[in-house]
Amino acid sequence: MKILVLGGDGYLGWPTALYLSKRGYRVAVVDNFLRRHYDDEMGVNSLVPIEKLSRRISTWEMVTGLKINSYVGDLTDNSFIYETIKDFMPDTIVHFAEQRSAPYSMIDRDHAVHTQVNNVVGTLNLLYAIAELNPNIHLVKLGTMGEYGTPNIDIEEGYITIEHNGRKDVMPYPKQPGSFYHLSKVHDSHNILFACRIWGLKATDLNQGVVYGQETDETVLHPDLATRFDYDAVFGTVLNRFCVQAAVGVPLTVYGSGNQTRGMLNIRDTLACIELAILNPAESGEMRVYNQFTESFSINQIAELVKECSDDNVEITKIDDPRVEAQEHYYNAKHTKLMDLGLLPHYLSKDIVKNIINSAIKYADRVDHLAINPTVGWRNTKSQLITANPAKN
Amino acid sequence: MKILVLGGDGYLGWPTALYLSKRGYRVAVVDNFLRRHYDDEMGVNSLVPIEKLSRRISTWEMVTGLKINSYVGDLTDNSFIYETIKDFMPDTIVHFAEQRSAPYSMIDRDHAVHTQVNNVVGTLNLLYAIAELNPNIHLVKLGTMGEYGTPNIDIEEGYITIEHNGRKDVMPYPKQPGSFYHLSKVHDSHNILFACRIWGLKATDLNQGVVYGQETDETVLHPDLATRFDYDAVFGTVLNRFCVQAAVGVPLTVYGSGNQTRGMLNIRDTLACIELAILNPAESGEMRVYNQFTESFSINQIAELVKECSDDNVEITKIDDPRVEAQEHYYNAKHTKLMDLGLLPHYLSKDIVKNIINSAIKYADRVDHLAINPTVGWRNTKSQLITANPAKN
Repeated sequence: MKILVLGGDGYLGWPTALYLSKRGYRVAVVDNFLRRHYDDEMGVNSLVPIEKLSRRISTWEMVTGLKINSYVGDLTDNSFIYETIKDFMPDTIVHFAEQRSAPYSMIDRDHAVHTQVNNVVGTLNLLYAIAELNPNIHLVKLGTMGEYGTPNIDIEEGYITIEHNGRKDVMPYPKQPGSFYHLSKVHDSHNILFACRIWGLKATDLNQGVVYGQETDETVLHPDLATRFDYDAVFGTVLNRFCVQAAVGVPLTVYGSGNQTRGMLNIRDTLACIELAILNPAESGEMRVYNQFTESFSINQIAELVKECSDDNVEITKIDDPRVEAQEHYYNAKHTKLMDLGLLPHYLSKDIVKNIINSAIKYADRVDHLAINPTVGWRNTKSQLITANPAKN
Repeated sequence: MKILVLGGDGYLGWPTALYLSKRGYRVAVVDNFLRRHYDDEMGVNSLVPIEKLSRRISTWEMVTGLKINSYVGDLTDNSFIYETIKDFMPDTIVHFAEQRSAPYSMIDRDHAVHTQVNNVVGTLNLLYAIAELNPNIHLVKLGTMGEYGTPNIDIEEGYITIEHNGRKDVMPYPKQPGSFYHLSKVHDSHNILFACRIWGLKATDLNQGVVYGQETDETVLHPDLATRFDYDAVFGTVLNRFCVQAAVGVPLTVYGSGNQTRGMLNIRDTLACIELAILNPAESGEMRVYNQFTESFSINQIAELVKECSDDNVEITKIDDPRVEAQEHYYNAKHTKLMDLGLLPHYLSKDIVKNIINSAIKYADRVDHLAINPTVGWRNTKSQLITANPAKN
């Protein structure tokens, strides 16, 4: 089976490409290096040094004998994505190729517009390309648990049966996303559902939780194969960021009450979930939705866990929440469908946290302390970029 | 009160501007003439000749002594909308300035992308401009009943109380739109709701039904003040199109079973609803949703009514439905909120239909028969444009 990984140079796209390559699939990656450009724009770097895509791919071949093809270009350029699909003729397309930071989308108007146009137009082009070139291609699209927000009822996987005034229907689960980035994913979901309905496309929308971890069985085979490790306030996710703060001995910064609860998962489970989706494709005309996370934690729970795993007695500090989000809320999100397909989760443990902290300690001299503090506020329409000194590349 | 009407040169924007001007508001219109450009692209024209915006405005002043300001530019150009708001300093912004045809959005990839980028980016720019320049501006945004699709439960006005597994929440009503155009409106609604939540903006989202009619008390004051009358398969709405078919003695073309049911309203009620929304603004932080229609009809009911009102014994023909939509469905959409504010509907009557048919008869020699038949199919990813000979302008 041939699998095209869009955004295959990114934090999750690259380890996914390696994982699938190792498992015997023929893999090609697509990237326009926009994620690396955002680093330049923000003046930050991945904590763990990463190699250029070409070097990553040649090292992978050297280490494993396996080939990964690459296509460099932008999904918003429709001729590029058409030509790429015609050339590689994938059976499955895994789509990570979106601007994926909520704070980045909230910097100002330009960044909000960029995020929505980049994500929505890229996905629209992809839908048309699949419909026109090969509607049998299974689209595995990365969404986010953040599409749902924090409703006061159970969160179902994509659809909900609503009984109302004596009648009943299964309807798309109402979405209450919390940033222009999360909104772009909601827009995508609606567009994909429609494309499946009118053209009979096959899609799986993976509403992923917050991913933690930086190492996979494949990335550890050679330093050149490392994936990104973001700890900055714009692209760093919460557990990774706390581990870096612990590694350099600065307080863990909890936004607001810390009672905000989110679904989370290990980076290794991301890879397994994607393969499970690939092995069990959606039907023609179906947009299947899986909630892709394994456990829910409050931010306070994560902070306490990281504190316990830290050798130094690191502090936990509460700072004003730069986001507009419920500080206290109900949270019960279903996530049984991937388990039913056979997912064996790597649950969060002290060993895992210690391992992430140790990864961070190795590169502690690369940490830019100024990059950790949030500069982007949801209540402002114009926020400052991070303008600290980046670590040397 | 100062009111800025975005899309003020269009089918509804122009009569809205006149109506509000006549009612004593200080009115300015914004337009980029994209709607006139679409006519050029499609090779069609408004059945009723329309004057240039500058002529319309000068005639309005000549007839009534009332001034309407105009700003020519594009909402996707953010500096334009910022400068316009700074210059006019409106209290209310009525936003019609979107690509509003479902078939146009379904022509091909280019038209789908254009529709979503034009509508979503224009509205995003507007939200940022309001937030930065004056969050007290009340945004009155035109949405569409087509955002809801045809669920098997009652359609509520924007929000629904969902009881699920023993808990309850009021949530955004799940949307199942039926074209890339309708999807763009759903994207807008989500973006607006979020902007209200984080910045405390005031918005009213008017989910409008299918509008019929071409004359208002103001447009009939002088031929230069006429608004558009679209009957072509791309921009013509169903009742207007049937009236033109009756006027020229060709069969009324019903798509599919004709049992598709939709909410409809008289153009005069559009104007009244907009004034009611303006007079009763949303609260800070609130995105209020009103379903703006007065009656529901099946397409067959509309066809039968037009047939009865036609002097010639016009036929009704069923043709393959170019759209992907439910042919038989439940439809019970609530629309009490505007009635509660005092709307006195102009219900559809034979007199009204006969009046529309008579308008069409006056300009029967301008009808381009080839433009009436649908050329855009939902199941295709590439449809032909209308390439008929346009009526002389």
